[in-house]
Order: sequence, then structure tokens, then C-alpha cells
Amino acid sequence: MKIRIAKNSGFCFGVKRAIKMAMDKSEKYNKLSTLGPIIHNPQMVSKLENQGVKSIESLEESSGEPIIIRSHGITSSTYNQLHKMNVEIIDATCPYVKNAQESGAKLSKEGYTVFIVGSANHPEVKAISSYIDGESYIVKTPEEIPKKNFSKIGVVCQTTQQFSKLEAIVQKLIHQSKEIRIINTICTATTLRQESTRKLAQDCDIMIVIGGKNSSNTKMLAVISKEFIPTYHIETENEIKEKWFKNVENIGLTAGASTPDWIITNVYNKIINLLGFPSGTVNNVEDIPGY
Amino acid sequence: MKIRIAKNSGFCFGVKRAIKMAMDKSEKYNKLSTLGPIIHNPQMVSKLENQGVKSIESLEESSGEPIIIRSHGITSSTYNQLHKMNVEIIDATCPYVKNAQESGAKLSKEGYTVFIVGSANHPEVKAISSYIDGESYIVKTPEEIPKKNFSKIGVVCQTTQQFSKLEAIVQKLIHQSKEIRIINTICTATTLRQESTRKLAQDCDIMIVIGGKNSSNTKMLAVISKEFIPTYHIETENEIKEKWFKNVENIGLTAGASTPDWIITNVYNKIINLLGFPSGTVNNVEDIPGY
Repeated sequence: MKIRIAKNSGFCFGVKRAIKMAMDKSEKYNKLSTLGPIIHNPQMVSKLENQGVKSIESLEESSGEPIIIRSHGITSSTYNQLHKMNVEIIDATCPYVKNAQESGAKLSKEGYTVFIVGSANHPEVKAISSYIDGESYIVKTPEEIPKKNFSKIGVVCQTTQQFSKLEAIVQKLIHQSKEIRIINTICTATTLRQESTRKLAQDCDIMIVIGGKNSSNTKMLAVISKEFIPTYHIETENEIKEKWFKNVENIGLTAGASTPDWIITNVYNKIINLLGFPSGTVNNVEDIPGY
Repeated sequence: MKIRIAKNSGFCFGVKRAIKMAMDKSEKYNKLSTLGPIIHNPQMVSKLENQGVKSIESLEESSGEPIIIRSHGITSSTYNQLHKMNVEIIDATCPYVKNAQESGAKLSKEGYTVFIVGSANHPEVKAISSYIDGESYIVKTPEEIPKKNFSKIGVVCQTTQQFSKLEAIVQKLIHQSKEIRIINTICTATTLRQESTRKLAQDCDIMIVIGGKNSSNTKMLAVISKEFIPTYHIETENEIKEKWFKNVENIGLTAGASTPDWIITNVYNKIINLLGFPSGTVNNVEDIPGY
């Protein structure tokens, strides 16, 4: 019997940074707020709440405490509102998301009609779009591109977009302008986690996907894994059932970009103990055998 | 029996402009030189020669007379050499070619690695390339792109390139940089002439292609037309043979971007007279029935 974790799993760079900022600041202040849950992981949100970091839905709920901007950013109008409140702003916007916001703004300022490749309803895309003054469009497929010519086209992407979507859109846009400038702001973290899960699933008998039930990227890992093998999506080790492991030789573990290391470690150790693995428990996620 | 001319045929904008500049200046000066034949049409070159405009192969042949730069431009080093000679420079570089030169230089100055989509041996491409100071590549197919990543990629094109080549190259380059800026400097004149010839050929029994035997774009029109119908490539009306028209109902005419109107008119009138068309001869190319 073997247990292994997908090569790319757990916190991405931007989430790790945001959580670290929140943790550090919680040591300095008694009270702190995040505008919306800082990440889509209920256990992490609870843990921060215990350290005085509360999630609020709108700025009206705030009473002057420092405010943390979560990793996928906020719109320019919310930012201006926050600025006027004269509270300390802790900007945990992921640097990759910030780059997408700044690239969109720069292209617009330089006279480009900006196309954002992404989902119009996603908060990250709403934020990117809010920093653009001139003509701009949010498109997810080539069919959504207006049928007209543009003098100069600029392109940026929601950081979690699939590269193939960007490709298809550029292939269409190149016919509609004499100048097209693409700033590929896709972050590879999402793609890498999906690819690693797909690979591991093809080499295991069951997969445990760890992460918030409200986390889109974690749910996507479960969808991918289910194409190959029985898959269980859990938030913590308490959901593990012994019967899952009957007649199982190879166990796979994977975790979304918003799943903290300590939860992954707990899940691993619980399985090790349950099945009496001779290898013993680990203290760090890095000690779990990787794929 | 019908005779029609391809919708897009004869002088393109840049050639028309260059010839007009040469003609106008020949009225002012007794002696003038063009660096290389001003266009690939022996009849036009002879005509200009009779007006004192001589084609020279290198600047050493010049004796201080004004020099005309032909429509596809010259390299920066030739330009500098010309400048030092302190002669009058008549710059008949096609504005579309100039745009390609300036776009390449601008992208390079702004830190882009510049890819020129075109033929490395073509004088136009040599000229574009000469205005680029930084890293640059001349590529005709995706296979010629070096296998490495670049910080910022800029793309410009030889004005007579096929759009499909640009598309294929961009499709590859988009994987090799986080930023890619394409300035599509392709001029549609070449494509339009080819498309018009292809269309007309499918609706005729024979085609007469008019233009210099040394003109690449004219030769290409003959190649396209030959795929459909018997095709005769001639430089002047003197080459026309009556036997070509036996059992022919529909006659097509087309001409390259370097073929002057008066030659097209002469060819049309010769056929009209030869076959006794009731419609009569014309004075202007515009009066030939267009497709």
C-alpha cells in the first residue's frame, strides 16, 4: 500500500502571502477585518477569526479597524471608499492579480481597447475591469467578441483562465486590428494543480481531494480526479471513512490552492494511523511522499 | 465574347506614388538616379530613362545628381552613406514599408525582441531589419523560431506577406513570452490582386497576365491563374497572338502591382481591334469593364 500527494497541491504563492500578512498583522492588532472571506477555506477563516481577524461583507460593517484586501483584489470604487475611511489598508491582493489590474489600466491609458479574457461575474475580473477607463470588453469565448474593427487591441487575462481560451480569443482578434498587444497575466498555479491531479489519478486507486467545499479550484480537482478513479472531497481529516480504503493499493492526495498545509498534514497522518502504515506520521507537508 | 479585367489589378498605392515622384522630379532635373530599378517593369524603367531617370546599382556610380529611393526602401547604412554624400534625396519608400521600418525600430527601442515575418533575402526585409538595434529574428515559418522564452516579443511583417504566415507564427510565439505585441504591417494590395485574379480565372476561358517578367508579384498572378485556365504572361501588347482566342468566350485580364496603366490599356485595345469587338477601344484603364 502506498500514499502519495500530487506534486503541485495546496497553497499557491498569492494565498500563502495573503495568509501570512493576515497572521502577522493579527499579532499587532486586536481587531482586523477582511473584506469577504480571505480565502475559500472555512477552517482557515475560523482559525483567523480566533486570532481577531473577522470577515465582513461590506465596509459599513467596519468600525475603524485595519482592513485586509483579500488576494483576488477589490474594485477601484471600493478602494476609493476604503481610502476615504482613513483606516489602515493591508493590501493582500495577489501580485499576479495586481499585475493583471495594472496591465489592463496601462493598456487602456495607452489607447488600446482592452479585452479581458475571463468570467464577467468573477470578483477578480470585476476588479481588473474597474481600473480601465476606456473601451473594454470581458470575453470568455471568441463568439463573444463584437464584430467590428478596432484601432489598437490590448488583451489581459483573469489569472486562473485556461491558456487555450486566450489562444482562441487572440486567433480571432488578430483579424480585427492592425495592432494587438497581449499581456498574458495567467498564473500557472491553477493549471499546474489540475495537471498534477490528473497525472496522479491515473496512477492510483482512490483520491482524497482536500479543501473548502466552497472553493471552485478544489472542486475542479475533484471533477478531474473522478474521471479516472473514486474520489472523495473532504475539508478535514474528520470526514475520512475507513471503508474507502478496502482493497486499495495506491492512495492519492491532492489539495486546492486555498488549502492550508496543516489540514493536508492532518489528513495524511490520520490515514497513516488508520491503516497502520509503517512509515509513520509527519510534521510537515513537505515530508509527505510527492508524486 | 467578353473581355474583363480583374477588380484589383495594376499599380498599387506605393508604386503609383513612387512613379509620380520620379516623373515630377524628372521635369525639374536633367539628371536623376534610382538606386536599383524603381519598379520591376522594364517598359516603365525605359520610359523614365528617356526622361533622364537612370537606374544605378550602387552609390559609387553616382556623380552628385539627386537620388530616388525606390518603393521598397533601403537599409540604414545605405541611407547614412547617401546622407554623407550631400546629394538631394527623393524618398519614394512606400509609406506602408516605412511604417514596417518604423514599427520594427519602435518595438526594438521599447525593449521587445523583434520578429520580422518575411524572407531574409528580400531587400524590404533587409531594410526593416537594419533599423532594429536589439535582438531580432527573421522568420518565414513557425519552425524557424528559436526554442526559448523571451521577456517581450514584438512582431512586424514584410508588407507582401500572407496573413496566414503571420497567424501561424503568432500561434507559436504566444507560448514563448508573457508579452507579445503584433503590429500587422501587411499591405492588402498583394492579397487583393491575388484574390481578384483567382475569382476572375474561375469565370473565364483564358487569362492574359500583364507585367514585368522580372516581377515576382506578377509571376504569382500567372501561377494562380494557371491553376484554372490557360494563361499567358506578357509584358506588352506586342506579344499577343491571335490563336490564343480560338473558341474562347470569356477573356480575363489582370496585371501586377508594378504594371503601368498605359500598358494595360494598350493590351486591351490590341485585343479589341484584333477580334473586332463592337465596344471599341478605351483611353483609360478605368474604362475597361471591371470584374
